Amino acid sequence: MALLSVLTPALALVLCMVVGFLFLKSRAPGTSPQGAGQAKAASEKEFRPWVDQDLQDDTEITTGGGDKDEWVESDDEKDLAHVPYSPQRYPEETMLQRSKDFYSLMNQRRSVRFISPEPVPREVIDNVILTAGTAPSGAHTEPWTFVVVSDPETKHQIRLIVEEEEEVNYRQRMGDKWVHDLARLRTNWIKEYLDVAPYLILVFKQVHGILPNGKKKTHYYNEISVSISCGILLAALQNVGLVTVTSTPLNCGPQLRLLLKRPTNEKLLMLLPVGYPAADATVPDLKRKHLDGIMVAI
Amino acid sequence: MALLSVLTPALALVLCMVVGFLFLKSRAPGTSPQGAGQAKAASEKEFRPWVDQDLQDDTEITTGGGDKDEWVESDDEKDLAHVPYSPQRYPEETMLQRSKDFYSLMNQRRSVRFISPEPVPREVIDNVILTAGTAPSGAHTEPWTFVVVSDPETKHQIRLIVEEEEEVNYRQRMGDKWVHDLARLRTNWIKEYLDVAPYLILVFKQVHGILPNGKKKTHYYNEISVSISCGILLAALQNVGLVTVTSTPLNCGPQLRLLLKRPTNEKLLMLLPVGYPAADATVPDLKRKHLDGIMVAI
Repeated sequence: MALLSVLTPALALVLCMVVGFLFLKSRAPGTSPQGAGQAKAASEKEFRPWVDQDLQDDTEITTGGGDKDEWVESDDEKDLAHVPYSPQRYPEETMLQRSKDFYSLMNQRRSVRFISPEPVPREVIDNVILTAGTAPSGAHTEPWTFVVVSDPETKHQIRLIVEEEEEVNYRQRMGDKWVHDLARLRTNWIKEYLDVAPYLILVFKQVHGILPNGKKKTHYYNEISVSISCGILLAALQNVGLVTVTSTPLNCGPQLRLLLKRPTNEKLLMLLPVGYPAADATVPDLKRKHLDGIMVAI
Repeated sequence: MALLSVLTPALALVLCMVVGFLFLKSRAPGTSPQGAGQAKAASEKEFRPWVDQDLQDDTEITTGGGDKDEWVESDDEKDLAHVPYSPQRYPEETMLQRSKDFYSLMNQRRSVRFISPEPVPREVIDNVILTAGTAPSGAHTEPWTFVVVSDPETKHQIRLIVEEEEEVNYRQRMGDKWVHDLARLRTNWIKEYLDVAPYLILVFKQVHGILPNGKKKTHYYNEISVSISCGILLAALQNVGLVTVTSTPLNCGPQLRLLLKRPTNEKLLMLLPVGYPAADATVPDLKRKHLDGIMVAI
């Protein structure tokens, strides 16, 4: 029995490999060698997909040509000049007032799921995206693509994809606990705002760059960088009186990427519907933590 | 044969479940199912730690008590009332002007490594942290802790830890390519700003919460949420004329967490030195991408 207990992990591993092999073989021709990765991702996904996991999109990543970081010379790799930097400085009183005002502005921000169909000036959206693009990024790689969709037909296609996957998420993948946590916020798989909002902003992270010679360029900490950029995007939207809800549509990445014709080095990180709030918009009556609940001074 | 081919996926699934069950059962008491995940994470770490990986801190995670998402009733799980939401609305012209002004403000932000030792009003820092705390988070879990260090001795301890690890990173872990990419920005392992800056903000992500009854509370998408919050933090700092540099000190997480006496469910995500720029501060002469390089309109 003790021997069996020692052997079981090894046995399990071998069985898993056999099973995995059979499973792959059983798939129709035309599936890629990455099927294994997908199956693995899928099984992990069924475990706890929403805890510190990327949105999965392992489709069509071309791995040929070496995964190692290759030394590549290109124009933007030259040593950069350094220039003096002296930004605006405010008197202490002004700083204090500005810090209060900005806190007050941002503290009014809420995730809003009821968005008005009223048109929003496109130039405002351009400026908001430009603002998001001022975020820092690992080694200044700027690994983000913001796809701004206003075409009604494309918005509807997006809705169909998201709702189909979200219904499966709610019914099968998420587990009672998550569904319950979201039920408090009255969140479900019907996403009317995807048709209604004048703009959908789909934020893609570029998991690597592509150099002019076709080689890969490493994008250090790309997910953190793009998420920081989204934080600045939210601030920019709030600053002009527009609302959104930060959503991370689970399992829709590959389909949405194909729909929007984005290359395989880009993966969907977030989807933000943007517009004015609907006249009858409501939000859950949430409170935020107090300062002593989020800050420790040493 | 056709029948077999149809059955194989189902068969594979059942086998996988059996195998998975055996595998879990075979593990020694006290170890959790996460051991496997940790081992996997560790081996991945040695591969390319800086690409879409968390800062690693797997030390002392207490995994006892079940890894599954348990249904937990607590005060904050009650169904929430929904309240009307009608934020300030600006005329189009005002929106446009505000979007330009905020872009202009944020576009002046740069990562600054030369920070003045001049004191900064603590109340400004409080407001900046409060502002960061307005970020959205998965299921409103607010999974962030901002440790604000002004004590000179603690700052120096932090510097010693970071510089020791960073030197190893530069000399051994990062590879020529990364060192080269950072050399352009004149970045190395000497971090004088860690002593000099009046404040160091260490941003921790709470990988899970802890309920009053001691059980774990799931923190959905905690790394993305905390990164978004950091984006808003950067905006708030820029708004008051303070500078910082967004750093992700590799491999220092566990030591810094212990130094700052943070619990094991918190992991260091970023370290931001904060202050006025030094009078002779310089920045690399980087350009940002144009709008058509980051935005696609459909």
